[in-house]
Amino acid sequence: MLAVTILGNNSAIPAFNRHPTAQVVQTAEQSFLIDCGEGTQMQMMEYKIRSSKINHIFISHLHGDHYFGLIGLLTSMGLSGRKNEIHLYAPEILKTIIELQLEVASAHLPYQLIFHPLKNEEIILDDKKIIIKCFSVKHRIECWGFLFTEKKYARKIEIEQIKKYNVPSTYFDKLHIGEDFITEDNRVIKNELLTSAVSPPKTYAYCADTLYDEELIDKIKNVDLLYHESTYLHALQVKANSRFHSTSIEAATIAKKAGVKKLLLGHFSSMYESLEAFKTEACTVFENTELALEGSCYTV
Amino acid sequence: MLAVTILGNNSAIPAFNRHPTAQVVQTAEQSFLIDCGEGTQMQMMEYKIRSSKINHIFISHLHGDHYFGLIGLLTSMGLSGRKNEIHLYAPEILKTIIELQLEVASAHLPYQLIFHPLKNEEIILDDKKIIIKCFSVKHRIECWGFLFTEKKYARKIEIEQIKKYNVPSTYFDKLHIGEDFITEDNRVIKNELLTSAVSPPKTYAYCADTLYDEELIDKIKNVDLLYHESTYLHALQVKANSRFHSTSIEAATIAKKAGVKKLLLGHFSSMYESLEAFKTEACTVFENTELALEGSCYTV
Repeated sequence: MLAVTILGNNSAIPAFNRHPTAQVVQTAEQSFLIDCGEGTQMQMMEYKIRSSKINHIFISHLHGDHYFGLIGLLTSMGLSGRKNEIHLYAPEILKTIIELQLEVASAHLPYQLIFHPLKNEEIILDDKKIIIKCFSVKHRIECWGFLFTEKKYARKIEIEQIKKYNVPSTYFDKLHIGEDFITEDNRVIKNELLTSAVSPPKTYAYCADTLYDEELIDKIKNVDLLYHESTYLHALQVKANSRFHSTSIEAATIAKKAGVKKLLLGHFSSMYESLEAFKTEACTVFENTELALEGSCYTV
Repeated sequence: MLAVTILGNNSAIPAFNRHPTAQVVQTAEQSFLIDCGEGTQMQMMEYKIRSSKINHIFISHLHGDHYFGLIGLLTSMGLSGRKNEIHLYAPEILKTIIELQLEVASAHLPYQLIFHPLKNEEIILDDKKIIIKCFSVKHRIECWGFLFTEKKYARKIEIEQIKKYNVPSTYFDKLHIGEDFITEDNRVIKNELLTSAVSPPKTYAYCADTLYDEELIDKIKNVDLLYHESTYLHALQVKANSRFHSTSIEAATIAKKAGVKKLLLGHFSSMYESLEAFKTEACTVFENTELALEGSCYTV
């Protein structure tokens, strides 16, 4: 299970009750927060995202609409008595900013904040169920995207068959990875008789704020769900590019060229009250496009 | 005219749709922002407070619930094309934090941000219509209160009388300050015939976060409206004091001893869903008490 809940879909200035960027990637076991614009902790309350399930936070870059809500979330977690450590993945200087803000408040977090500076395109988290890689994107300042890849699922054990062949539970790990069962009298029971396949692992790519950049294509090739920013409609392509942002058509072009399954558009400029035209424009290039709407959950 | 609009009335963690501390003091001509917790810019939109009317911002202290929304507001003002300067009055280190956050974003404000570090109890703004003084309060870290005093109003010129006695407009400044009018043939027309008195100047004191502290009494003596924090109900007096906060009863006691006209309670702990008991408790000591409710405007 891999799903993305949008907490903020707006760029720069909050507008039309849209909030700056934040989203939560959820697996069956935990939640990963990507970016944390101002008001993210309130949006988490609004949409029933439990901060206790978040152990890893990823900050793409240090424009305020992607991290001004972080210090508030971290201190609120502390005030709520959190004990579990938080892993924070972000550009290195953020550590200095957080430490300074804690210091001037004479504040101490009751949990360990483990800082992982983003430096190279590499695997930054290799968990039981998921692998997360960061990749650089082209923006006005240092900026990172994140690629979530579920680990290949173990095969599912079929309880009725297990009983029938009297397989001991000590054998389950071997069954999960596809091995056959050898009985005491040396009969071979094929794995396919004891287990079934599960759906293939899913992938999600978050491209943060970026220019139209064909170097992205290889980095996000064939993902199941691609979040690509689309700050402006295509009529404002020149303005978009001058600010190192993309348009709806550009986002859709990347999605098409990368052969992704589905495209999620976000980071909309405050100049647009209605967002429908973003989808209409993108669909002319790449049909399976959706708008990232606050409070909505997109299952990968 | 002096009025206070509450944008955030909660302490520490946002809760029950209450926001961290922020309020706007309005005169006929401009607005003054006091404290700026996370989400203040959204609250300003919600309650139709125009940021273009704000030229002065006062930050009482550097606990996050009083300033984490400031950098977002300042950058949004910049992104909206603001040109007029902003005067910021705050503990000195805040300048470093803001500069660092702008620097890592490669951001430049298109207006001048003039920083006034708070150092002594003194007049920090002497405007055409108002005088603002800061005074220290006792909290866990350096913390400041602010006293707003309207300037004595000029007398109001009565147009019908002006016509009747044919007073030239060059004489108005003298009439405003109470002088009589001398006609060309040397008759004395008493000022009272030409002008009328207006209501006396008003005073408002904001006490930020503070322990129960009788040294406050002299600083806020006889003000028309006193905002005093009341983080906890009186049953939690020991807890309140250990955290350098006050209770409802303590706030009311200060109001009574200082002989103020009206008390406004705020900075409620996130542990309380209903706020009514704060008023009930305070009224047992000082009757003219109101709760600072978000979106409400309290005319001084």
